[in-house]
Amino acid sequence: MKKIIYPDQKNWEELCKRPAFDSTKLEANVRDILSTVKEQGDLALIDFNKKFDGVETERIKLDISEMTFNIDTDLADAIKIARDNIAKFHSARQEDSVKIETARGVRCWRKSVPIQNVGLYIPGGSAPLFSTLLMLVIPAQLAGCENIVVCTPPQKDQQLDPVIGWTCQLLGITKVFLTGGAQAIGAMAFGTDSIPKVYKIFGPGNQYVTAAKQLVQKDGVAIDMPAGPSEVLVIADESASPEFVAADLLSQAEHGADSQVVLVSNSKTLIKDVEMELVQQIKELPRKDIALKALENSQSILVRNLDEAIDFSNTYAPEHLIVATEDCDELGEKIVNAGSVFLGRWSCESAGDYASGTNHTLPTSGYARSYSGVSLDSFIKKITFQKISEEGIRELGPSIEKMAEAEKLQGHKNAVAVRLEKLKNKIKKE
Amino acid sequence: MKKIIYPDQKNWEELCKRPAFDSTKLEANVRDILSTVKEQGDLALIDFNKKFDGVETERIKLDISEMTFNIDTDLADAIKIARDNIAKFHSARQEDSVKIETARGVRCWRKSVPIQNVGLYIPGGSAPLFSTLLMLVIPAQLAGCENIVVCTPPQKDQQLDPVIGWTCQLLGITKVFLTGGAQAIGAMAFGTDSIPKVYKIFGPGNQYVTAAKQLVQKDGVAIDMPAGPSEVLVIADESASPEFVAADLLSQAEHGADSQVVLVSNSKTLIKDVEMELVQQIKELPRKDIALKALENSQSILVRNLDEAIDFSNTYAPEHLIVATEDCDELGEKIVNAGSVFLGRWSCESAGDYASGTNHTLPTSGYARSYSGVSLDSFIKKITFQKISEEGIRELGPSIEKMAEAEKLQGHKNAVAVRLEKLKNKIKKE
Repeated sequence: MKKIIYPDQKNWEELCKRPAFDSTKLEANVRDILSTVKEQGDLALIDFNKKFDGVETERIKLDISEMTFNIDTDLADAIKIARDNIAKFHSARQEDSVKIETARGVRCWRKSVPIQNVGLYIPGGSAPLFSTLLMLVIPAQLAGCENIVVCTPPQKDQQLDPVIGWTCQLLGITKVFLTGGAQAIGAMAFGTDSIPKVYKIFGPGNQYVTAAKQLVQKDGVAIDMPAGPSEVLVIADESASPEFVAADLLSQAEHGADSQVVLVSNSKTLIKDVEMELVQQIKELPRKDIALKALENSQSILVRNLDEAIDFSNTYAPEHLIVATEDCDELGEKIVNAGSVFLGRWSCESAGDYASGTNHTLPTSGYARSYSGVSLDSFIKKITFQKISEEGIRELGPSIEKMAEAEKLQGHKNAVAVRLEKLKNKIKKE
Repeated sequence: MKKIIYPDQKNWEELCKRPAFDSTKLEANVRDILSTVKEQGDLALIDFNKKFDGVETERIKLDISEMTFNIDTDLADAIKIARDNIAKFHSARQEDSVKIETARGVRCWRKSVPIQNVGLYIPGGSAPLFSTLLMLVIPAQLAGCENIVVCTPPQKDQQLDPVIGWTCQLLGITKVFLTGGAQAIGAMAFGTDSIPKVYKIFGPGNQYVTAAKQLVQKDGVAIDMPAGPSEVLVIADESASPEFVAADLLSQAEHGADSQVVLVSNSKTLIKDVEMELVQQIKELPRKDIALKALENSQSILVRNLDEAIDFSNTYAPEHLIVATEDCDELGEKIVNAGSVFLGRWSCESAGDYASGTNHTLPTSGYARSYSGVSLDSFIKKITFQKISEEGIRELGPSIEKMAEAEKLQGHKNAVAVRLEKLKNKIKKE
């Protein structure tokens, strides 16, 4: 962990830079994978399962309702609790706006409509992430999406991970396909014989998955957000527990060698104590090597006061922000750029990762300046409607004509003119 | 206009395809422009103004408050009416969700925060689009964005179009810059000496602007939506006025040679009458040549009944949808994919383009299946917060531990374990 002491504000931008990654070469590979999937469909997916995952699969589609999954009872209970909390938090649906009469006879409104077909990518990797399945399926179902397609890479025994399978059954998900990586993204974007084409793709993944999601946008598919390596920023004062802070930093560092963890504090002592705790706690971690590499990219920053800490955090725009200070509520009010915020010493990031109810699919790499995390809104689009009466067009028509004329769009003006003319004739007749 | 009679549903996908455009070559040009802007900043913008717009500009930034613009009084009144209606419609802000206690001691909530720095691109072309200025500035101001940057290409007389200038003053916009095309997008994405770097870029533009918006996303900038040529689909029955329908189709066709207009009807007679009207009305249009080219790409489709018409429209997912039928309200309920909908014979698309209050920045090319048009929401992101009490972590902790363990993320489990351990010791002490 690099130590930075009282950095000048003009160096903040540099400190906020995430490790750069050149995706040019990788992108060419991903383009090839995508075009192979576009041409060959399911056959390509079966080939890629063999090539990339070393697994022989006969069929991509699983008959999930015919399968049986046995998982530990405690784990089953934990997943149910998480499901209930996530559903509770995500179901706070906002009402559509009422019809607004913007001018006499001109009524306008917006209507929320679920995105019909959505694709959810659940990464495999070191362990299949059933928590991501919960985080994406629950809001999709609450939004009312008609077709929810799930793709996840095959496990070495050629089948679905039992916890993923069990959770799919719990949630009533049936369209589950054994394919991962860039090829899974291509399959959902273009459709294959077995996998339906979707309108929007969600979910995290490695650099191949991320590049594929970026590329398929040109083919008319929306994506949840651009994803980068996971990150946490912890603001802590001398009241914070070094043990808790170190554990929180490590819980992020173990994600991947490219994860970033940042500690910002106004207390030299706290920073020193956290560093000592890190050395102790990292020893016990099964993913120690990964966490150590992540810490190399990471930094602790000593600032003059907590307001400066919040300013720095707002410049950094972290995916996760833990505020472990005495006055966390007051500081919380000043946050303008962050994905998800954890206030106070008992609010650890793992709570939001799994079970407190908030979503864990969040903007990384500074995208929190402009993006929100996944929510029910992500599975909905809003259509505007308007209905104009005779009186409405008579009142508003001349303004429209004037503006269309000034933009030199005579056809736009004419669409109003023919209507006003008709109304004039109508009045004459009456 | 191609005539298609009772098409089989299996051919709909083909009928819904927009004219393809190969952007590969253009993309290389745009990459060059972007990297030049990144390296040379304002100097590059001044060079490009000369090269692409044939205009010598000394400075990119305008002192808008020092300038005087004279515009026609009727036009000024029209713009004010449009401003009021747009503000009325867009200010229907939705309240943040209240704090939810998802489990005992676990409080979670979402907070809306404006995106601090936004960039608005206002195209020049045949006429500067002050209507787009209204459509983007008003929701940005209502959302509370701190820095609103406007870029627009210079006019031949080296200055700002007077209506754009006047509208900027009306709205109180001061950060106005004379630069257009891909270079303007680059300038807002990277920042230059005079133009502030922004977090999200909005606004329509030609293929260069669109390609630049797609490319800068990789540099951490969000965009409103992928933009394509404008389009309208009109559903009309025999009750519709052929004169109105033809005028509406032409108001879209005059936008550009690549615009698409589609007429779907259950009445042979209506289709024939509209075609005759088109021939008559197009003669009078100043932009006749453009409209004629657009009509070549366009189609009229005869369907068996109006339900089929709505099904086709939902498959096509038009940017603008006009429902000119007797039972337009009932049909309106069945719409699931569209940008903005105009119900009934008096609701012409021009109304929404200018002054009824709804936004005219809308998803094209079928993106209406997953994207909404621009609204106040587009200028806001939502941050999730959570605060967990001692009781909360004691209750929820074991579930988090169980799930983290099943995902083989020991560090995540540990962040809970150190807290539960502390609480156990605390109870012992007490």
